[in-house]
Amino acid sequence: MTYCVAIKVAQGLVFASDSRTNAGVDYISTYSKMYSFDLPDDRAMVLLSSGNLATTQAVINCIKRDIENDTAVNLKNVHYLYDAADYIGKLVKQYQKEHGDTLGKSGISAEASFILGGQIRGHEQEIYLIYPQGNYISASEDTPYLQIGETKYGKPILDRIIRTDTTLGDAARCALVSLDSTIRSNISVGPPIELAICDANDFQISRYLSLDTGTQFFTSLQKSWNDGLRRAFNRLPRFEWELPELVKDSKTSSGN
Amino acid sequence: MTYCVAIKVAQGLVFASDSRTNAGVDYISTYSKMYSFDLPDDRAMVLLSSGNLATTQAVINCIKRDIENDTAVNLKNVHYLYDAADYIGKLVKQYQKEHGDTLGKSGISAEASFILGGQIRGHEQEIYLIYPQGNYISASEDTPYLQIGETKYGKPILDRIIRTDTTLGDAARCALVSLDSTIRSNISVGPPIELAICDANDFQISRYLSLDTGTQFFTSLQKSWNDGLRRAFNRLPRFEWELPELVKDSKTSSGN
Repeated sequence: MTYCVAIKVAQGLVFASDSRTNAGVDYISTYSKMYSFDLPDDRAMVLLSSGNLATTQAVINCIKRDIENDTAVNLKNVHYLYDAADYIGKLVKQYQKEHGDTLGKSGISAEASFILGGQIRGHEQEIYLIYPQGNYISASEDTPYLQIGETKYGKPILDRIIRTDTTLGDAARCALVSLDSTIRSNISVGPPIELAICDANDFQISRYLSLDTGTQFFTSLQKSWNDGLRRAFNRLPRFEWELPELVKDSKTSSGN
Repeated sequence: MTYCVAIKVAQGLVFASDSRTNAGVDYISTYSKMYSFDLPDDRAMVLLSSGNLATTQAVINCIKRDIENDTAVNLKNVHYLYDAADYIGKLVKQYQKEHGDTLGKSGISAEASFILGGQIRGHEQEIYLIYPQGNYISASEDTPYLQIGETKYGKPILDRIIRTDTTLGDAARCALVSLDSTIRSNISVGPPIELAICDANDFQISRYLSLDTGTQFFTSLQKSWNDGLRRAFNRLPRFEWELPELVKDSKTSSGN
């Protein structure tokens, strides 16, 4: 399994991904699921991947080869980010078709999903979710984030915090909390967590972090969040049937 | 969809369930998914249901009929709670088999899952998850809760809070927060929320609440949790790249 999330706020884009890959529970390894490419100064793109590792590797290799060979359509020369999403969607379908039948006979899915985010000069920043079927959707003002992989455990905090006017720092922290909740609940999602931020109109990855289990910043973020949640929980209103005891207690202590 | 959770702590059992039922997105209605039965004084049982509404209703009707007719095996006369789980598992399989083929042709699943919890005098309180296949598992000290339906959104808070020594009040609050997170993220899970508590060795439902959107206690719990989460989020550590601005700001203000 995998969990990747991309967030689009007014100040820029945030990308976060875990690094655990597994073929069954007895073959677990670590692979980056975040890719960037050698592109001209007028553009930046980040790709997050989920699904069959052979399919995602084949797609990434083909994207890089097409850039090197400067083919008719590649990430260097597309005019719009949705052209890039369309191009990647076609590659996904192509590689899934190539190996899908034989994989299907072994009960394995060849499917892969991607999130593509970035900016081409003259246009706004955008993020796209590219489905295994090759079609794609973009984020919107009302839904300013996209997820792939094990999406449910980490969704509630995104729904509560992320708005278009959220700062890049808060959006990045929210992505880390979302990853942390997922890692705690699904053993097939694991560190290191990669975090990339693209400031609007910067046309490059402005900041990048790789956070492993022992990384001090990540440990203190996890602790702070856990403590904060417990504090929030302990402040929740009491049920009516709990109150008499409190009253009794306070009477007893005032009588002392 | 549905979300139900049962929690077993040393002080007793907590059951919580939503009430939304849907056949497609254009036919949404409200049905209770929490059932109790007219049983002798030596026992109490609560059943939570998820899945095909016709299957769950057929199972519940059969359980009630068997109690009335005092059949060879029914909830009044079983000696152990796992006998009750086994009996319900057999009913589930029977009704799924009866309508499964015709439903399957319409692309609809006949499957249903249940959580059974309670106590029979002479034994500890227990909770069981009964699968559509008729088999069942109980909760343990390490995993003191069981869920059915849309389980993922509400799982992280259970993992953080629930231990065997958690108080009944905290366990009940945690169940409500878990339901609240699920309702926010999945439109097919909805209020009213039913909450039932069985104190250990009380052999009845000790406390029961039905909480709808406008119920004051539930509204204030939702607000308190949302405010607490935001406070916890705002206290998270800042990234290194955010700190220089803070230093600069404090220098500016100290210079004024």
